[in-house]
Amino acid sequence: MDKNSFDLITFGEIMLRLSPPRHARIVDGDIFEKRAGGAELNVASGVALLGLRTGIVSKLPQNELGTFIKNRIRFVGVSDDYLVYDDTPDARLGLYYYEMGAAPRKPTIVYDRHQASVTRIKMSEIPEDIYHSARMFHTSGISLALCQNMQNVAVELIRRFKSAGATISFDVNYRANLWGEEEARKTIEEILPLVDVLFVSEETSRRMFKKTGDLKDIMKSYATDYGVKIVATTQRTVISPRKHNFTSIVYDARSDKFYTEAPYNDIDVIDRIGSGDAYVAGVLFGLLKYGDPEKAMQFGNATSSVKNTVPGDLPSSDFKEIDRIIHEHHSTGPVSEMNR
Amino acid sequence: MDKNSFDLITFGEIMLRLSPPRHARIVDGDIFEKRAGGAELNVASGVALLGLRTGIVSKLPQNELGTFIKNRIRFVGVSDDYLVYDDTPDARLGLYYYEMGAAPRKPTIVYDRHQASVTRIKMSEIPEDIYHSARMFHTSGISLALCQNMQNVAVELIRRFKSAGATISFDVNYRANLWGEEEARKTIEEILPLVDVLFVSEETSRRMFKKTGDLKDIMKSYATDYGVKIVATTQRTVISPRKHNFTSIVYDARSDKFYTEAPYNDIDVIDRIGSGDAYVAGVLFGLLKYGDPEKAMQFGNATSSVKNTVPGDLPSSDFKEIDRIIHEHHSTGPVSEMNR
Amino acid sequence: MDKNSFDLITFGEIMLRLSPPRHARIVDGDIFEKRAGGAELNVASGVALLGLRTGIVSKLPQNELGTFIKNRIRFVGVSDDYLVYDDTPDARLGLYYYEMGAAPRKPTIVYDRHQASVTRIKMSEIPEDIYHSARMFHTSGISLALCQNMQNVAVELIRRFKSAGATISFDVNYRANLWGEEEARKTIEEILPLVDVLFVSEETSRRMFKKTGDLKDIMKSYATDYGVKIVATTQRTVISPRKHNFTSIVYDARSDKFYTEAPYNDIDVIDRIGSGDAYVAGVLFGLLKYGDPEKAMQFGNATSSVKNTVPGDLPSSDFKEIDRIIHEHHSTGPVSEMNR
Amino acid sequence: MDKNSFDLITFGEIMLRLSPPRHARIVDGDIFEKRAGGAELNVASGVALLGLRTGIVSKLPQNELGTFIKNRIRFVGVSDDYLVYDDTPDARLGLYYYEMGAAPRKPTIVYDRHQASVTRIKMSEIPEDIYHSARMFHTSGISLALCQNMQNVAVELIRRFKSAGATISFDVNYRANLWGEEEARKTIEEILPLVDVLFVSEETSRRMFKKTGDLKDIMKSYATDYGVKIVATTQRTVISPRKHNFTSIVYDARSDKFYTEAPYNDIDVIDRIGSGDAYVAGVLFGLLKYGDPEKAMQFGNATSSVKNTVPGDLPSSDFKEIDRIIHEHHSTGPVSEMNR
Amino acid sequence: MDKNSFDLITFGEIMLRLSPPRHARIVDGDIFEKRAGGAELNVASGVALLGLRTGIVSKLPQNELGTFIKNRIRFVGVSDDYLVYDDTPDARLGLYYYEMGAAPRKPTIVYDRHQASVTRIKMSEIPEDIYHSARMFHTSGISLALCQNMQNVAVELIRRFKSAGATISFDVNYRANLWGEEEARKTIEEILPLVDVLFVSEETSRRMFKKTGDLKDIMKSYATDYGVKIVATTQRTVISPRKHNFTSIVYDARSDKFYTEAPYNDIDVIDRIGSGDAYVAGVLFGLLKYGDPEKAMQFGNATSSVKNTVPGDLPSSDFKEIDRIIHEHHSTGPVSEMNR
Amino acid sequence: MDKNSFDLITFGEIMLRLSPPRHARIVDGDIFEKRAGGAELNVASGVALLGLRTGIVSKLPQNELGTFIKNRIRFVGVSDDYLVYDDTPDARLGLYYYEMGAAPRKPTIVYDRHQASVTRIKMSEIPEDIYHSARMFHTSGISLALCQNMQNVAVELIRRFKSAGATISFDVNYRANLWGEEEARKTIEEILPLVDVLFVSEETSRRMFKKTGDLKDIMKSYATDYGVKIVATTQRTVISPRKHNFTSIVYDARSDKFYTEAPYNDIDVIDRIGSGDAYVAGVLFGLLKYGDPEKAMQFGNATSSVKNTVPGDLPSSDFKEIDRIIHEHHSTGPVSEMNR
Repeated sequence: MDKNSFDLITFGEIMLRLSPPRHARIVDGDIFEKRAGGAELNVASGVALLGLRTGIVSKLPQNELGTFIKNRIRFVGVSDDYLVYDDTPDARLGLYYYEMGAAPRKPTIVYDRHQASVTRIKMSEIPEDIYHSARMFHTSGISLALCQNMQNVAVELIRRFKSAGATISFDVNYRANLWGEEEARKTIEEILPLVDVLFVSEETSRRMFKKTGDLKDIMKSYATDYGVKIVATTQRTVISPRKHNFTSIVYDARSDKFYTEAPYNDIDVIDRIGSGDAYVAGVLFGLLKYGDPEKAMQFGNATSSVKNTVPGDLPSSDFKEIDRIIHEHHSTGPVSEMNR
Repeated sequence: MDKNSFDLITFGEIMLRLSPPRHARIVDGDIFEKRAGGAELNVASGVALLGLRTGIVSKLPQNELGTFIKNRIRFVGVSDDYLVYDDTPDARLGLYYYEMGAAPRKPTIVYDRHQASVTRIKMSEIPEDIYHSARMFHTSGISLALCQNMQNVAVELIRRFKSAGATISFDVNYRANLWGEEEARKTIEEILPLVDVLFVSEETSRRMFKKTGDLKDIMKSYATDYGVKIVATTQRTVISPRKHNFTSIVYDARSDKFYTEAPYNDIDVIDRIGSGDAYVAGVLFGLLKYGDPEKAMQFGNATSSVKNTVPGDLPSSDFKEIDRIIHEHHSTGPVSEMNR
Repeated sequence: MDKNSFDLITFGEIMLRLSPPRHARIVDGDIFEKRAGGAELNVASGVALLGLRTGIVSKLPQNELGTFIKNRIRFVGVSDDYLVYDDTPDARLGLYYYEMGAAPRKPTIVYDRHQASVTRIKMSEIPEDIYHSARMFHTSGISLALCQNMQNVAVELIRRFKSAGATISFDVNYRANLWGEEEARKTIEEILPLVDVLFVSEETSRRMFKKTGDLKDIMKSYATDYGVKIVATTQRTVISPRKHNFTSIVYDARSDKFYTEAPYNDIDVIDRIGSGDAYVAGVLFGLLKYGDPEKAMQFGNATSSVKNTVPGDLPSSDFKEIDRIIHEHHSTGPVSEMNR
Repeated sequence: MDKNSFDLITFGEIMLRLSPPRHARIVDGDIFEKRAGGAELNVASGVALLGLRTGIVSKLPQNELGTFIKNRIRFVGVSDDYLVYDDTPDARLGLYYYEMGAAPRKPTIVYDRHQASVTRIKMSEIPEDIYHSARMFHTSGISLALCQNMQNVAVELIRRFKSAGATISFDVNYRANLWGEEEARKTIEEILPLVDVLFVSEETSRRMFKKTGDLKDIMKSYATDYGVKIVATTQRTVISPRKHNFTSIVYDARSDKFYTEAPYNDIDVIDRIGSGDAYVAGVLFGLLKYGDPEKAMQFGNATSSVKNTVPGDLPSSDFKEIDRIIHEHHSTGPVSEMNR
Repeated sequence: MDKNSFDLITFGEIMLRLSPPRHARIVDGDIFEKRAGGAELNVASGVALLGLRTGIVSKLPQNELGTFIKNRIRFVGVSDDYLVYDDTPDARLGLYYYEMGAAPRKPTIVYDRHQASVTRIKMSEIPEDIYHSARMFHTSGISLALCQNMQNVAVELIRRFKSAGATISFDVNYRANLWGEEEARKTIEEILPLVDVLFVSEETSRRMFKKTGDLKDIMKSYATDYGVKIVATTQRTVISPRKHNFTSIVYDARSDKFYTEAPYNDIDVIDRIGSGDAYVAGVLFGLLKYGDPEKAMQFGNATSSVKNTVPGDLPSSDFKEIDRIIHEHHSTGPVSEMNR
Repeated sequence: MDKNSFDLITFGEIMLRLSPPRHARIVDGDIFEKRAGGAELNVASGVALLGLRTGIVSKLPQNELGTFIKNRIRFVGVSDDYLVYDDTPDARLGLYYYEMGAAPRKPTIVYDRHQASVTRIKMSEIPEDIYHSARMFHTSGISLALCQNMQNVAVELIRRFKSAGATISFDVNYRANLWGEEEARKTIEEILPLVDVLFVSEETSRRMFKKTGDLKDIMKSYATDYGVKIVATTQRTVISPRKHNFTSIVYDARSDKFYTEAPYNDIDVIDRIGSGDAYVAGVLFGLLKYGDPEKAMQFGNATSSVKNTVPGDLPSSDFKEIDRIIHEHHSTGPVSEMNR
């Protein structure tokens, strides 16, 4: 592979996230914290911070907000080479408002993403050389759900990357506020035969895909039915909005093996948004770097657990940090209380 | 009742509250967060946010501080129609400093409320039409304790609202730093025959009113002895300054029934001040809206529990939020982790 | 007029305004200051703070953002009685981003207001009793420009208030980014015969209405041609983004007199947005309170000048402050340096 | 003089100052900046920062607020040896709210200092050894005006320090909101025979002391009439709330000479409060350190000018900074733009 | 002992500490909180806040950073009499960056303290009168480890204070990032015969000093082998970065007794840095004030527990607070939830 | 030139900059704003934001601080391809503290950059392919002055880039606190024969290079004596720390012409640091993009003027903004007050 290739390219919407300061509420106060976020950006950034080269295909308004987002994308280590810009009068950046929770009050999200510039992205805006520039392509069900045009572009990108030899990763990431279960199922089932690495929750498997029985059998069925090679399902226990446990199961169809580990317990949840994407990032990093599903599962669990402790959608952990956390998670002796 | 009537009018002092940012201390740092607070305002605001029309009788200095408080009162949904202003050179706004705790350090309050303008409020400043404009009147033992003039005004207001047909609600809210138990008991016993809805803690019942025996018998005795119709007693368990459990018992003398429910456990306490007033607000809302003591108890518990998770004295929950929390508290199946 | 009437009701969009902290830029930094703004809200608030009763007709999303705006509207003294709420999935709050300038860098605004809930307001949502409840109605060219539906509603409101006997105030407030000059001119010319109080800039008079010659003659022509009774034109000199001079001319057709005064010079401009609306508020207050065009001009100039010194769209001056500033502006002797 | 002596001891009230962030208003916003302030503390601190040993006599509440103030006093270099504490239930710290101005809006102060603990300070609380421990004693007309008890204590302190051989410095500092001109004049005339160094404004000389004629003759008359040795009068020109010019005249009765210098022009006023006290501090430092009225005038002008550029009542300049500013003020060649 | 003597003098480096706001990360964000810190300053401040007179020997750069640190030292109640200043071009203030943790992410420290001015402190800069001015002298292994010169100065100070009759306190405080265990052991063993009060962790006793067997026997061995009179060992259980338990054992060689108490459980850890120093401060206060090892142990445990709940290295608790916490820790009945 | 080439590569130190919030002081307060800065980074970023591809050669510590700086470098559009990392125990990031000024107080800088990792950068760490990857190379006198090793590396980079055909740009940027005039002159004279584009101030030309006579003759002499092709000299007039005028002269030796324009007057100086580097960036952009010295002068003046209005060392202007400002600077008709 040549020096300029990417390990991973993703496709999806990038939004402005606005949050009141920790514990404050949307309905009160004078301040919003401004951040960038979006499922596929979160994944690209997580993989980049761990040490691989990543880029993202998206469309931003050609104004100060678009520039802010572009700068933040670069800040988190992702290439802006495949961003395209919208200079029409209708150009807009999708945004969402996020308020953290504290038991018994739950976190709240208000979306305002209709008609964002990315919904008008065209295949012709994406350079032809992209398909051979990356080892892996990733997108999620959110891109399929946002509008028909994005669905068309996402599916076409999956096809072209697949043809060019890239591994295809897909996170079902079902959002009931974006589309119905039936529509989602039909759409996703059409692309599953193209997918190599699948992220799907147990709840979605049971409710949307109507799977029943043991979780492991369910996970295996995606390999059997559609030829998926890796299936990953997270297992999160919400003790309170500020305290979670987390682990996952990864199924490798080639070896027909399941990988899991003891959960990270009593995670201090500072900001839960993006922890699912951080999990995807960790798994994809493990696959891209080591080709090892066990390591993928370990990086996924660690990256996701740590993301919960960091404000914002985007992960901020480098390889050294995650490596140390994995090591300590498996360590049985005394560990230092502090990194000095 | 005509369109301009109020569901609830309260009487009491409104103060400026100054707090160092979370975890910082009064003795250090450069910043105070400025907020409005006061038991009876907290109650009026809680009921207003849940959807009813409320107002407050109080006196503010005719200066920038008074204007700030007036603006905040309106912000939290309470009418400023019955506020009166003090333009004398002695006009002042009472204030208090509040520092949050973290185990084993307890929260700290320093009051500076002597000689506030409200202590010089006169009956003649309160318009005559007020007594027929509201379905319910509420005040607390704090108003009785602050000074002789406020006590006189409070008692007179109770009398006049009662005569005009309003329901009288009273929260004993005993504060040892304001008056002695003996003086408090004597004063309160005189107004109890006028009270329809009584909020009194178990500790106060036992220590100030010298009641003994089972809590339910104690609660019932207020109905038997003074004709109180509803008696409500909260049950808070302080696990740490940042973790409480909370529920309550409501006694309805008309049906001679007690209402309670499983406690809200492991409440993430961000700011405990005002959670007692939020309880009163929830109960009064339940009574005013539904006339149902069970719903009153449920709204009281939920509103109080949520208040603990929000910075500031004042509640910020609307009906939709509280309704959802009550529903989930009683739900046995899986609930979503987030409001999207 | 009965106790519950309003002195002024306005109609228009209310937006969320997001600004980086003073001197910081949209493309950088972690924080946006969140505020409410909108031309007609600014006017209603300015008049309310000066002591009259005002309300606003608008439509907000039925979510946390809508609640925030409603709370802020109340905070600035305006009634929320005539707000209607949008609980459809498309509900959204229009917003704009504002970055302050510093010479030679100019202030920048990025709008994101397409498809806001207010653009779908319906006449049937506005209660019939509103037309007889107010002495004056005000809206601006922005409401006409935003979309055809708002234009229809605005024109219909003007007609109905006029029929009910209210004075009609209209601020041309031409925005080239919303509509073309030709379209604006045609639309506005149709409503001018209904307008009693007209605010129009010299530039708009010359460019959009193709008026030529002396400014005073131009102003007078609105009275002659359309029967406008009061015409007001501001005169702002921009020395730098942080230093302006300001005065205005008011023409009273009934007496055929022009009123003006020496400009406020060297205004320390902290935030220029909303200072035009503050001018409108001052003039309308002067007319409503005193029926005196000279006082109207004085209140307009003072209120606008002070607004420039305050962050946010919304004015924050009460009568005492404006009265003192007018007095000192006309004073020739020494004035105190500070309000103690 | 022994190692433990002080160069200067002052007497006066120390208050908590609460200010909204720059440009924000008291009536709005969520934050107050918290600081310590008080005319005589400002003087003691200014002299201490320039390198001499100073202390202050005052009384603080024995609570967290008192501790905060004590810590800040130490922070600014002043000894807390002569502070006394009030542990009665009435203990309170005086406070004031300060909002900065921007033309044409003037700065605003709201005081809330009635009944502060310092008003109950007793001579018996001040240790006897204090009178021989300092070379100079300073207080101001504010201490005389606050209440009869403080006036008694202030006058008694002046007498005792004078008897013990200390130089007496007095700043008339007339505040119309504290007492009337007639009462002030009578009170101050009684202590003038004890005063060695007098600070009095031209306006006060003319209005309160009914002096007429040339300013220099007026200044001289305090020496002639009462035996004052040094008379200092500042000359401030307020161009706008954010732009002042400043210089002063110092009269030395011993040599019968006047000292002045070209004004500091176009001072960028960030926070004007305390700049008068900073002037006193600079002059007293010049007298204590060099015994030279010309240097006193220069240090006074420089220290006061710089104070205007710093937020808070208290000065923050050390000798190196003031020395450099004096040098550059008198320099005619090119000076560096920056201190590197 | 005369009035001007100190109860405790310490020696060590004082650093600038820079921390991102709570939960934010060093690699992101726009803000660092600036604070002063350093093991021996923390100890001196802790003892001063509890009511005794303390000072510190250290060297600071003669620039704005040095002045900031000096001001903070005074703010926290410690005398700046024995600070010396470095005005060479190489003058620098050591600093460190501290990021708080949240499970499973651990706290992180990055040091930047090489070549700080304090490493060039000379015996000749420390006044001769210091040795007879204090009842106790304290330093830690950090001072020995930083560089050869500081080690020489620290050892010489220990010798001279010992000769002058002061009690010598020493906290081993081993830091693997500063020196090796072997070098540390050799150096410390040389000074142990001079030490009266020794703070050493169980881990250090076992790993560095190669002690084995029961902890109590280990503690006792320092008395037997080197004549140490008081040996104190803390016992911290890290449940998570935000939840600790804490107690300690104090051995008194004179009475051959061990003192301990039930741990403070579920401490809400806001900032763990400096809690070990706060323990030392509490113990030394107990010894200096009461000469009672049991009280020393109680003050140490309470002061350390509370320090964990306060941001910054430096303690902020006065005697009243610690006394109340000790009392409640031993109380078995109900305690109030709040300090009013 | 191939797709991966850079338009500009620079070499120099990158520092952490710590500033108190606007108007606050280093000696007080709780907060530092954290930013990246460094003359050659500022230049690379300025050119990148205007639309060209740039990179920087530097060395950063392999820790969280290095990561922060790397992220910020990417944020401002500069490639991190040629950064090298220091993982030795001595690794450190140079830093400086910056306090803004307000007349008569000047801005203050305190440097702490000794022994930073960059001072140990080696030629062997810089990849060989770099020399043919860029059209232009830039560094400044600061890199020559920091230490002998950086001087060696800087000179060697100039030689190698020159040999590879790149244009060499050099900014004298004399800093008296880093080296003496004599040493600087000798060193710089040795590299001047290699320089194509020279930035030198009039003061440096006269004092360091001992040039006399007319400024234009002086500028020309660098072309005559050393073969420099473009010589640029800025002309800044400091009215106050917050108000500057700015223009420049550019000499083109090939055409023997001088280019200048009317100054930008009354620039609102928010943060002056980096405005000289922004000038260099504008000029280099003009040369690289258009090869036109007049456009270079115009872009230099505009970019520098705008930089003064933005907090931080780094520019933040894109092509659209600068183009608009140049256009308005030359416009004679009315210009809009705001960018909408």
